[in-house]
Amino acid sequence: MASEFDLIARHFTPAAPGPEAGVALGVGDDCTLLAPRPGRQLAVSVDTSVANVHFPADAPAEAIGYRALAVSLSDLAAMGAESRWCLMALTLENDDETWLESFARGFHSLCTASHTALVGGDVTRGELAIGVTVMGEVPHGQALRRSGAQPGDILAVTGALGGGAGGLALWKRGERDLDHPLLARYLKPAPRLAAGQALLGLAHAAIDISDGLLADLEHVLAASGVGARLEPETLPLAPGLVEALGIQAAGRAALCGGDDYELLVSLPAAAFDEARRRLSEQDLALTPIGTICAEAGVTGVEIEGARGWQHFRGDTP
Amino acid sequence: MASEFDLIARHFTPAAPGPEAGVALGVGDDCTLLAPRPGRQLAVSVDTSVANVHFPADAPAEAIGYRALAVSLSDLAAMGAESRWCLMALTLENDDETWLESFARGFHSLCTASHTALVGGDVTRGELAIGVTVMGEVPHGQALRRSGAQPGDILAVTGALGGGAGGLALWKRGERDLDHPLLARYLKPAPRLAAGQALLGLAHAAIDISDGLLADLEHVLAASGVGARLEPETLPLAPGLVEALGIQAAGRAALCGGDDYELLVSLPAAAFDEARRRLSEQDLALTPIGTICAEAGVTGVEIEGARGWQHFRGDTP
Repeated sequence: MASEFDLIARHFTPAAPGPEAGVALGVGDDCTLLAPRPGRQLAVSVDTSVANVHFPADAPAEAIGYRALAVSLSDLAAMGAESRWCLMALTLENDDETWLESFARGFHSLCTASHTALVGGDVTRGELAIGVTVMGEVPHGQALRRSGAQPGDILAVTGALGGGAGGLALWKRGERDLDHPLLARYLKPAPRLAAGQALLGLAHAAIDISDGLLADLEHVLAASGVGARLEPETLPLAPGLVEALGIQAAGRAALCGGDDYELLVSLPAAAFDEARRRLSEQDLALTPIGTICAEAGVTGVEIEGARGWQHFRGDTP
Repeated sequence: MASEFDLIARHFTPAAPGPEAGVALGVGDDCTLLAPRPGRQLAVSVDTSVANVHFPADAPAEAIGYRALAVSLSDLAAMGAESRWCLMALTLENDDETWLESFARGFHSLCTASHTALVGGDVTRGELAIGVTVMGEVPHGQALRRSGAQPGDILAVTGALGGGAGGLALWKRGERDLDHPLLARYLKPAPRLAAGQALLGLAHAAIDISDGLLADLEHVLAASGVGARLEPETLPLAPGLVEALGIQAAGRAALCGGDDYELLVSLPAAAFDEARRRLSEQDLALTPIGTICAEAGVTGVEIEGARGWQHFRGDTP
């Protein structure tokens, strides 16, 4: 088999990023050296995607590569950060070159699209898993936190909901048309980086919807010490979701399904129109789905047993 | 089983680091916000430790936690960087609380000793593996690279060699006295952070010895476009190594064994005494083991079949 060094060199050191990408010394030494810009804070996050826990092991390799980066970038998006750098810890069962080439192509395509330089990584042997650390920058003191929601705020979501859960359901049923909008949605979610940055200075709080709307909403409410009234009938459903799942399951997917990677935003009513305008320039919808109130808890929706995705609970694909 | 959020909250958010640690916003939001210091470059690296590939799965949990951080910090040490922050991607087969508590204790103990703030992480389900991203700072333009070795330089190593391989050999034989110096050496290697920083401005090049002296030396030689003459009889052997392995295997462990995490340094002869003096203040030896020459290759030692540790080659514990 190829050595670890060969693998890394062949697939993960493409056109080396240079000073223009804030990279003073690229891959190939003990560490990479980066040049953060003055006046910014560094936003960092790590997410690991494990085969058959976070994605089906038989998903297309290109999608697995793309998706592993996307879920990490989504955390930067939720802070309003600009993505700059990432590191990948890749655990492989073998070194199938064809698979790896496709995987790398998917990963690199999103690096390019999101202006993220891959600046480090390692390859180890074991069950397929991809740990991606992302690093971004946000103007000092302006990051969107979970803790800023205020009574009277409008709750809104970007894009549409339920597509992640719907796509996964279709995959399990054997659907393999990668152009199916729900499947594309699940396999290649779009991290809302531009949207997050456009909301800086407008939104009071934001989070990305990875565990399901209700579960992630609860994180915002807990961090902000507030409650929310939802209007479930206003939830923007992913195109094709009702057709694929039926109306009841579609509504449940939008409320509780994971893997949507849209942004859930709390913002003052006075800022809503401007926020919607900025996102429309990105061809992205911003839909009000409720309001923040002082009283703890969520009203307007039946949430019994409707918690979102959590690991270690057997709730796997 | 406990939820992912419970696990993280219970074991990995101890006394939250604050502004004094360069942490503007700690664990609990989508990202952590960090404040790099002006005039420094950011040194970043990631290493994944996989059970039964990088360490025996039945090693003490505390040592597994300590060691996973140590191997990443060693990369910062090799650049002369000061450690500041880390993120941990933890993959667990189950959530044995006793094991996890011990693991976290080991990890946190080295965080404290190395002034490294744990600023992010995630927990997933799968074969036991620990991916640690470390972030440090180094004065602008002063990092120790692999590429700076020059003909005439003295090659030197910190501490002693072969202890990692020797300790692993003992573990395989059933030795379980954790106070045995070789076992301690293998299970809890000391990242040479202070040594790396003390060598800034003196050394031309450095690397940490993780894959074995010869393998890592070759990285320096290739990056610098030079060769080396080794004097194998000068290699400082870890205390107890000859007794444990016999003289031949001890020499081989020092040349080719992995997991020592000492620094291999190339420095001008004129700087050697000062470098040794600085390290002696840390109670750390600096031993000359050869010289850099213009001609490619390594002379003075039989290296046939003596390459260091690489993954994907069946060369597992």
